[in-house]
Amino acid sequence: MQLTYKGKTKDVYSLEDGNYLLRFKDDVTGENGVFDPGANTVGLTIEGVGRAGLSLTKFFFEKLNAEGIPTHYVDADIENATMTVKPAELFGNGLEVICRYRAVGSFLKRYGMYAKEGQALDAFVEVTLKDDAKGDPPINEDALDMLGVLTKEEYKELKELTQKIGGVVKEELAKKDIDLYDIKFEFGRIGENKHIALIDEISGGNMRAYKNGEYIEPLQLEKLMLSK
Amino acid sequence: MQLTYKGKTKDVYSLEDGNYLLRFKDDVTGENGVFDPGANTVGLTIEGVGRAGLSLTKFFFEKLNAEGIPTHYVDADIENATMTVKPAELFGNGLEVICRYRAVGSFLKRYGMYAKEGQALDAFVEVTLKDDAKGDPPINEDALDMLGVLTKEEYKELKELTQKIGGVVKEELAKKDIDLYDIKFEFGRIGENKHIALIDEISGGNMRAYKNGEYIEPLQLEKLMLSK
Repeated sequence: MQLTYKGKTKDVYSLEDGNYLLRFKDDVTGENGVFDPGANTVGLTIEGVGRAGLSLTKFFFEKLNAEGIPTHYVDADIENATMTVKPAELFGNGLEVICRYRAVGSFLKRYGMYAKEGQALDAFVEVTLKDDAKGDPPINEDALDMLGVLTKEEYKELKELTQKIGGVVKEELAKKDIDLYDIKFEFGRIGENKHIALIDEISGGNMRAYKNGEYIEPLQLEKLMLSK
Repeated sequence: MQLTYKGKTKDVYSLEDGNYLLRFKDDVTGENGVFDPGANTVGLTIEGVGRAGLSLTKFFFEKLNAEGIPTHYVDADIENATMTVKPAELFGNGLEVICRYRAVGSFLKRYGMYAKEGQALDAFVEVTLKDDAKGDPPINEDALDMLGVLTKEEYKELKELTQKIGGVVKEELAKKDIDLYDIKFEFGRIGENKHIALIDEISGGNMRAYKNGEYIEPLQLEKLMLSK
C-alpha cells in the first residue's frame, strides 16, 4: 500500500489489486475556522469528522450502488476511516459538479442580481473547474467540449446523473426533515468501457443542509442522518 | 430630446418619435490608462474615438441590416457623433454575449489550465451578466432560463445570431488582413413581436483585433477598416 496523493480532506493509497484506498482525515474545507463546502483551503480540524464523513458516504454509496447508479465505491472500514474504491480517470484535471435546490453560496455571490437568498432552484446543475489558483471558475457545456474536457454527450449524462444522485440525497435528508440546499459531486470514468461514475464522497463536507431554517454542521448532519 | 441615461462610453437621449439617440463619447473602457474591452471602468479618453467608433458601428450595422440581420440601427450622424436607434428591451438588466476565436482576456484568466494564450477557439459563445459590482459573472443557459432572463429558445437564437454577426465582422476584418480574436455584443428585444436584435455598437472598443500578431488599438482599427 503506497501513498499516492495527499488531499485536503483525504489521503489516497494505491492497493496491489489496482484499487485505491481513501483515508478520510479530520480536516474540513473553510476559511478562518469557519466551515465552507465551497472553500479551497482546510479551514478547521474537527475530531471524528473523517469517520463521520465516511459513515455517511458509505450509507449513500451503498444506496446508490443498490439502485444501479454507478459509483467508484467498493467497501468501507469505518474504524480505520478508510474506503476502498475502483480506479477512476478524471475529466481533465477534475471537475466539481454542483446541484442546487436553493440559492446560497457562490451562486448567490454571482447571480444575486436575479436571485434572493434561499430562493428555490430547480435542481440546477453547474460545473466548475477544480483549479484552486483560479477560484474554481464556472464553465459551460460548449467550453468543456471545445477544451476537450467533456463531450456534449458526456455533459448530458453527467447532468442527468447529478440530478438523479442529488434527488436520492435530497429524499434521504427529507426523511429526517432536513432540507438539502446544494451539493457538490465529483465524477470520473471507470472500468474498461469508461462509463461515468460518481467518485470522491457524499458527506456533510460537500453539501449545505438546513433543518427548520437553521444550517446543520457536517458532524451534526451525520449524527442526524445515521441515528436510528 | 431628453437625456435618459449617462453610460460609460455613450449617453442616451429619448426622441419624440419613440426612438433613441446615442451620443458616442471619447471615453473607452480600461484600467489605469490602458484600453481593455472587458473592463468595467473608463480607463482613458482618446480624442476622436467616439466618432471613429460610430463610423465603424455605422459600417457594420448597415452591412448587417442589408443582410437582413436584425439590429436596432436607424441612422448615424458622424459629425455630431450620434446614432438613432429603435427602442429595445434588455434581457434582465442586460447581458454581454462574447464570441471568441482565440483564447485571450477573461477566457484565458478562467480557463488557462486548459487553453494556451492565442489558441484557436471555434466561435465559442458565452454570456455574462452586466453587473459591474460582481465583475460581470459568466452564466450558463440553464441558469439564464431558471432566473427568467432568457428562455432556452432565446438562448439558442442568441447564440446563432452571435456566431453569424461575429462571422460577418471576422470576414470584414480578414479583408484587411486583420484577425478577430474576440468580440462582445449586446442584444435586446425589438418591435411589437419582440424579436431579438443586436443593440449597442460594433467598434474597436468591444473587440480584440490583431494584425501580424500585434494588437491593434481601437482608433487604429477604425482607420485601417475605413480607409479605402
